[in-house]
Amino acid sequence: MSIRLLRVVAALSLLAACASPAPIELRDMGSFHVGGREVVISGKPVREVGSTPGGVPSKIDPNGVYQVEQMYVQYFLPARERGTVPLLLWHGGGLTGVTYETTPDGRLGWLNYFVAKGWATFDSDAVESGRAGWAPYPDFVPGDPVFRTKADAFERLRIGQGAGSYNRDVALMKPMPGTQFPIEAYENFTRQMVPSWTTTDAATLAAYTLLVDRVCPCVIVFHSEAGQFAFKVAQARADKVRALVAVEPSSGGDPAQAPALKGMPILALFGDNIDRDARWTAIRANAVKYLEGAREAGARVEIRDLPKAGIRGNSHLMMMDKNNLEVADVIQTWLEREGLYH
Amino acid sequence: MSIRLLRVVAALSLLAACASPAPIELRDMGSFHVGGREVVISGKPVREVGSTPGGVPSKIDPNGVYQVEQMYVQYFLPARERGTVPLLLWHGGGLTGVTYETTPDGRLGWLNYFVAKGWATFDSDAVESGRAGWAPYPDFVPGDPVFRTKADAFERLRIGQGAGSYNRDVALMKPMPGTQFPIEAYENFTRQMVPSWTTTDAATLAAYTLLVDRVCPCVIVFHSEAGQFAFKVAQARADKVRALVAVEPSSGGDPAQAPALKGMPILALFGDNIDRDARWTAIRANAVKYLEGAREAGARVEIRDLPKAGIRGNSHLMMMDKNNLEVADVIQTWLEREGLYH
Repeated sequence: MSIRLLRVVAALSLLAACASPAPIELRDMGSFHVGGREVVISGKPVREVGSTPGGVPSKIDPNGVYQVEQMYVQYFLPARERGTVPLLLWHGGGLTGVTYETTPDGRLGWLNYFVAKGWATFDSDAVESGRAGWAPYPDFVPGDPVFRTKADAFERLRIGQGAGSYNRDVALMKPMPGTQFPIEAYENFTRQMVPSWTTTDAATLAAYTLLVDRVCPCVIVFHSEAGQFAFKVAQARADKVRALVAVEPSSGGDPAQAPALKGMPILALFGDNIDRDARWTAIRANAVKYLEGAREAGARVEIRDLPKAGIRGNSHLMMMDKNNLEVADVIQTWLEREGLYH
Repeated sequence: MSIRLLRVVAALSLLAACASPAPIELRDMGSFHVGGREVVISGKPVREVGSTPGGVPSKIDPNGVYQVEQMYVQYFLPARERGTVPLLLWHGGGLTGVTYETTPDGRLGWLNYFVAKGWATFDSDAVESGRAGWAPYPDFVPGDPVFRTKADAFERLRIGQGAGSYNRDVALMKPMPGTQFPIEAYENFTRQMVPSWTTTDAATLAAYTLLVDRVCPCVIVFHSEAGQFAFKVAQARADKVRALVAVEPSSGGDPAQAPALKGMPILALFGDNIDRDARWTAIRANAVKYLEGAREAGARVEIRDLPKAGIRGNSHLMMMDKNNLEVADVIQTWLEREGLYH
């Protein structure tokens, strides 16, 4: 067994180099889907599907009732729970819950970090992403899906120095100065990207709201595009959200509803090099404007620019950056200080 | 904390009623993507994407290099490993690794079962499924995706008595006699279904082969459509596959390559009511023909029709059926007898 085990460990270590330092003891783990609705297709012709060679051929009748717009949630419940409420992890646009798992270069991700700390953790795939599946398109999903090129993600997510900074050859990439993103594993990160629509916000919001109704009170840690969803759900379910951790939110909620957040602790984290990128400067300003409105309305908002705290080089994907656990520590310390951990 | 915990448990128990009976101790858990290739789009116009209200608008240039055809793998490594090699779980068509997680009615699935038994378990999403993502379509995926209606899955997977047996009202469903499928949770099962292509077999096979090269020697447990992939990978990597467990395989490998399986232990499981359904009678006969060829070529094939062993009522989705752990016990006992467990 030891040789076989070594082989497995060696194979995994190629891409999952460090992994968890200590055993993880779970009371349970599992998954479920939540939300969605039924839609009907009618009047379309039956088509024959080319089956596997040697298999039994199939006719597909597309007419009928479909389940659409559900989302997927995977949960890990520690044997010794130390968070006073569960912690929900919501990913950004064009990604899935994989965001918080093992980093692209095989290090420990935030999912394992928070589970090992004793948080009951719910990591999800939003509507039309990953294991949530996607509805018959173009029938029930308005607009076209967005597929991201390798260059686009590199240049937009403050890994590279904007347009023209991507190159397949790591040596020829132009990363942001002092970047913490593991650029040698950038190609592996691109395997995590999934198509997404910019037209499914209402369905996504509905599913997240159902999730909160089901598993909260809770803390929500959310990234980028999930900003609008988390802030809006928190406004609508303020009694169920004990704290929000906004990781470079790309937008806020509804400013008119901000008074609903009165008294709610909100930590917003922003990484490095934002001032080198006009688009990110605008995105940050936009989110900060919403947050300041929430503060004026009584929310307990802390805006933390990591470089000001001496934490430098973070890209938009700070949960994958080389110092990702240092950033996780910032969140953990804040949650402890807010009395949400024992 | 106890009240909050009770709330969580109560909420979860609505859909995850039983879950794991005993704590799960993991040495590690994590995920990775494997395989795929680069493709290029050129000559297309730039388009503006309607952004979140209040967000910063984006222009999307679709031209560039894309990563396509990778697959996703999530792994759970028990603190006390008892399988002599890892166990891989491969799902069927139109589904994902969720197949093996919590059942649609919230009971313990095969993933938790095998992890709790001490198997290092790798549960994956095949190419174009779930967290594997899917390639720019129609540019790089030939043919149209198949979306399954609620009726189709019910009527085709031997949950219902064929055409016309589905009804949204559980009381009006016509399930197979004595079915073990939790039909009261059928609607929840439909949330697990994802679009799939019948034209991506070569890419899927390539990615599974890379997975085996990376984490095996191993045992592969596979379902339905994964039959062709598992048998073909086993033929090509016979030195790395210690045993195959075929759960209602919908097809075999290449009969001409069957001699590669000489000496390999193969357990094939078939559920109940196959003789009531002409399509399933044909599918089973097709798979059995391949298996008998493999046996003649020296593979150690056991074909187990569960009803003959007194295990009745199993649908095509036996890992979700109410007696799913009884079926898992059949697999576990067989693996122990094959000397793959200590």
